[in-house]
Amino acid sequence: MKITRGLLAMSAMLSSVAYAGPELESLLQVLKANGTIDADQYQRLMMEQTAPVPVAKSTPAIANASSGLEIISADKQFTAQVGGRVEVHAAVYNDDGINMGDGTSLRRARIYLQGKLYGDWQYKFEYDFADGGSKGFKDAYLSYEVKEGVELIAGNYRVPYSLEALANSHANTFMERSLGFAFKPGWHLGSGVNVSGENWTWNSGLFGDTPDQNTAGEDGEWILGSRLTWLPYKSDSDFAHLGLAGLYGDRGDHLGLAYKSGPESKVTKVNLVDTKSIAGVDSYTQLGLEAALTLNRFNLQAEYMAATLERSQGDLNFDGWYVQSSYFLTNDRRSYKKGRYSPVKPQSILGRNGTGAWELALRLSEVDLTDADVFGGQQQDLTMAVNVYATPQIRFSAEYIDVLSTSNPQTAEPELFQLRVEWVL
Amino acid sequence: MKITRGLLAMSAMLSSVAYAGPELESLLQVLKANGTIDADQYQRLMMEQTAPVPVAKSTPAIANASSGLEIISADKQFTAQVGGRVEVHAAVYNDDGINMGDGTSLRRARIYLQGKLYGDWQYKFEYDFADGGSKGFKDAYLSYEVKEGVELIAGNYRVPYSLEALANSHANTFMERSLGFAFKPGWHLGSGVNVSGENWTWNSGLFGDTPDQNTAGEDGEWILGSRLTWLPYKSDSDFAHLGLAGLYGDRGDHLGLAYKSGPESKVTKVNLVDTKSIAGVDSYTQLGLEAALTLNRFNLQAEYMAATLERSQGDLNFDGWYVQSSYFLTNDRRSYKKGRYSPVKPQSILGRNGTGAWELALRLSEVDLTDADVFGGQQQDLTMAVNVYATPQIRFSAEYIDVLSTSNPQTAEPELFQLRVEWVL
Amino acid sequence: MKITRGLLAMSAMLSSVAYAGPELESLLQVLKANGTIDADQYQRLMMEQTAPVPVAKSTPAIANASSGLEIISADKQFTAQVGGRVEVHAAVYNDDGINMGDGTSLRRARIYLQGKLYGDWQYKFEYDFADGGSKGFKDAYLSYEVKEGVELIAGNYRVPYSLEALANSHANTFMERSLGFAFKPGWHLGSGVNVSGENWTWNSGLFGDTPDQNTAGEDGEWILGSRLTWLPYKSDSDFAHLGLAGLYGDRGDHLGLAYKSGPESKVTKVNLVDTKSIAGVDSYTQLGLEAALTLNRFNLQAEYMAATLERSQGDLNFDGWYVQSSYFLTNDRRSYKKGRYSPVKPQSILGRNGTGAWELALRLSEVDLTDADVFGGQQQDLTMAVNVYATPQIRFSAEYIDVLSTSNPQTAEPELFQLRVEWVL
Repeated sequence: MKITRGLLAMSAMLSSVAYAGPELESLLQVLKANGTIDADQYQRLMMEQTAPVPVAKSTPAIANASSGLEIISADKQFTAQVGGRVEVHAAVYNDDGINMGDGTSLRRARIYLQGKLYGDWQYKFEYDFADGGSKGFKDAYLSYEVKEGVELIAGNYRVPYSLEALANSHANTFMERSLGFAFKPGWHLGSGVNVSGENWTWNSGLFGDTPDQNTAGEDGEWILGSRLTWLPYKSDSDFAHLGLAGLYGDRGDHLGLAYKSGPESKVTKVNLVDTKSIAGVDSYTQLGLEAALTLNRFNLQAEYMAATLERSQGDLNFDGWYVQSSYFLTNDRRSYKKGRYSPVKPQSILGRNGTGAWELALRLSEVDLTDADVFGGQQQDLTMAVNVYATPQIRFSAEYIDVLSTSNPQTAEPELFQLRVEWVL
Repeated sequence: MKITRGLLAMSAMLSSVAYAGPELESLLQVLKANGTIDADQYQRLMMEQTAPVPVAKSTPAIANASSGLEIISADKQFTAQVGGRVEVHAAVYNDDGINMGDGTSLRRARIYLQGKLYGDWQYKFEYDFADGGSKGFKDAYLSYEVKEGVELIAGNYRVPYSLEALANSHANTFMERSLGFAFKPGWHLGSGVNVSGENWTWNSGLFGDTPDQNTAGEDGEWILGSRLTWLPYKSDSDFAHLGLAGLYGDRGDHLGLAYKSGPESKVTKVNLVDTKSIAGVDSYTQLGLEAALTLNRFNLQAEYMAATLERSQGDLNFDGWYVQSSYFLTNDRRSYKKGRYSPVKPQSILGRNGTGAWELALRLSEVDLTDADVFGGQQQDLTMAVNVYATPQIRFSAEYIDVLSTSNPQTAEPELFQLRVEWVL
Repeated sequence: MKITRGLLAMSAMLSSVAYAGPELESLLQVLKANGTIDADQYQRLMMEQTAPVPVAKSTPAIANASSGLEIISADKQFTAQVGGRVEVHAAVYNDDGINMGDGTSLRRARIYLQGKLYGDWQYKFEYDFADGGSKGFKDAYLSYEVKEGVELIAGNYRVPYSLEALANSHANTFMERSLGFAFKPGWHLGSGVNVSGENWTWNSGLFGDTPDQNTAGEDGEWILGSRLTWLPYKSDSDFAHLGLAGLYGDRGDHLGLAYKSGPESKVTKVNLVDTKSIAGVDSYTQLGLEAALTLNRFNLQAEYMAATLERSQGDLNFDGWYVQSSYFLTNDRRSYKKGRYSPVKPQSILGRNGTGAWELALRLSEVDLTDADVFGGQQQDLTMAVNVYATPQIRFSAEYIDVLSTSNPQTAEPELFQLRVEWVL
């Protein structure tokens, strides 16, 4: 079938090469007019101009090698793309008495396949080999664009909650998400409706388990989540973002529920805050507030996240927040699309007579996972970072993290230094 | 190296554009004949027509984005394709007292690489991340077409047994294969010969372990399998299929052998029938009978599968069967190729002023895994299904399954309702 | 809409094809010179030669389907390629009393994504599903070509040590690497500098853990490795290779260190030599000596590998070596590039009126993992092999391995016979 199409296309292309085109025709007309060639010669020479018609069919798809491996059909109704990402982290820790474990880590190693079918249908499957097993599943969905700004989606995708949780790791300013990431719902199997306008988005969905949660004889959990974002101000180089998200989760038969967070470094496996598995949680609700301001090279971003866990023996309340700011030394700025930050596209390419984009960043974050009889602990971190975006796909980062305070049960206040090398296609 | 080839190809292409082709030569001949240009001028102008010869070589491969990402070389002797599939299931169970576990499941999540080399050689590697580990290996083989209808194959591929076991999940009518799927041999490492004619196929092979069976210090198992299919009747829109398959397995050092089957739903991990590991099985033989009738929109399909296990303490006999029928409400029909059903290609595309293909289906299936001292149980299911094939790649399914009877050790007779969203490239 | 696009594409292509090129211009000049056409006609006809400029833009990337799926951008600054490999082994063992386990094995099953960005940047990610988990990670790096012959690299890649360890399995003569492969450092997360000249290479790097080594609360290991290779003699068909490699490893907090080797067959999980985990090793140093001679069809290759483990209770010394020779019955030879053998490219294609490349090979190898209080054992193997390279991507191998001697704790001297089918893209 495809072979046949290929065959047709090939023959068409070859014949097309033999097509001298309008210029030759013009010349023939001139020569005939000048009496250089007679009517019969003119006829015969013109007769040879027939093959090209099928050319249109043979127009090959456009191929793109700059963001993975992509093919776009001639009519733009079909696309298919294979890409991936590799992130290597190295860290040295000033332990403060706890063994965090210096070293190196393959933080992310992903491959994805995505594309478009018949214009309106989109599919994606991405897997992270660094997480592995059934924790490795990232986007695995099918979506349908009903009309401009109205999309139906089903499969494994992120529950709409938190600006930094929804932005992909290549688009976030820091190597790891903030302490508040303890509240990330992450990817769940579900379906929903995403609507958006010129300067607002509203994503809502009903979700079931994560792909690794499915357990024999246990009814899965159900989550209802919704997120609303708005750009109160927007210009060519600047914008202000506001976001509000909420979710309600029914735990089904799932037993314990745990909230935890690493020290904004993942080379170590140590979590300074961790509620451990909390028994008897029937349901939980989460609130998320987002605010961001991007003024050309300057960026300010803050979020507040809170969770309430319903238990027969009394509810529990946890929360966290972060405030971060970054500034580009080069003439670059962060990009944003439909309620999410998207990866930085440096104005100049490192190694192509350019410097890439250089960014300085500062973050203060806190999380409190202690309430009533649950002592998950509190933690506050200060992070300083330098990012070099060599190309749109390649990024280097260096960070110094000072754990300002931890409390109950943890008392350690380590210092962390870490490096990242990353390519994302 | 390839870069260089690319460079050559590019320059060749550009130069090809400079090739005026035979028409220009014809004109030159005419002009020379007419004495408009003299012999020297003719010579010189003709001399410039040399570069183009390599054009054919430089013709780019045809790219196809409608079924994954595919490239076909200009001479059609080489193809390479990357594709995959994602299947999400959601189910609600009327348990009848057993905890089956409602919820969602990422049923299949695959990526494959396949292609053709030098015309006759074909390779494929497909992995299912939803199964994971060494259970995730699907097709991983190399084949060689000796001549039209004669193929040699080696690697990991399906032992030729059962019409529904060999058809890919996208081509089968129901969300899960029938109860008799307990007898599926599935993928094994082996090699064989596949011969076929206008209306028959005969596939035979010698197989070893499955990729996840290789255990330290254990001799692997060996399976001899063969399947014969025949189309006694065939027209443009109709055909009748008959199939006969048999296999003999020597268990080698492998200890227990188990036959089991889920309730035609895989969101739950519960199997209502399961022999558990049967000790002392030296070898086993399986028989398979297939019959199918496709009359345009109407389809009738039935299989009988039986297994005999040789043990010192007496042989064991298990069997199963199903009868299913389906009818397309739209002007569509199932497709079939070389002894297997292949995915439905809807006549109209949902979302492209079309409805897709709509199909109603009914299945009655039974399995008996109880014999002598082994009480694996009996089960009979009735399944009603609606399938919507939105595009050739996208499919939605809804099913109601009534477990009509179970016996010994199981007594539960649950009802199941399940949904599927699927894309396959 | 679609129609318009189609027409646009068509016209674009026609116009490109319609560019009669220099030949037509030459003709016009001639005709003007001959007075066949006047200056105005000449002008007008020449004016029509403008459309082609955009052609370059529309020139699609070159696609290549002969080594996986590859796309090369028109300007050759970007490439992207997806490929993989599948290797199936089958083995029968004359056990000599130990249960090695006959059978089949999916030895390798890989997929990779690699490419070039902005000319100088290169990325690669390859995963082996047959190893699975975090042992499956192979190349996962980013490299930058500072200038011809100077490359910076970071990520997961092979520590520069040993000729046969660095050559990919498709390029090595035998189905499995020699007994000395016990000393392979393999892939580690690190970064380094690779410099090379006309006939020498010098690769050095600082490495951390392997991707599967990262353990909670343990400082990772650090390895400093360097390898120097030189071609004292080189002609079109012949060359002599010399290599020297050394590495120093600081074990960090890692507990035991183990050296072991399979009997040059991996269908069995049995290792005849194995130090098991050696406690108290602070650091280790390894030396590697390489020599190879390729005289057209004839090949001679030898390596010596030695390791010294520093412990408080006294150092340990282990070593191993192999000598191998191969000869092509067909007019073929091994290929070599930048200090490594690369896959054989047969002169004729099997199934394309060709025989492929046929090679006979012999290897004698030994390893000694016994010293002081550690009894890892000694082993000496003799291997006879026949390789058939059907195409550059496809290879078949048959081997007979005679374990000449083993000692302490092992006494078995089994015979092994194994087959391999392999495709590599």
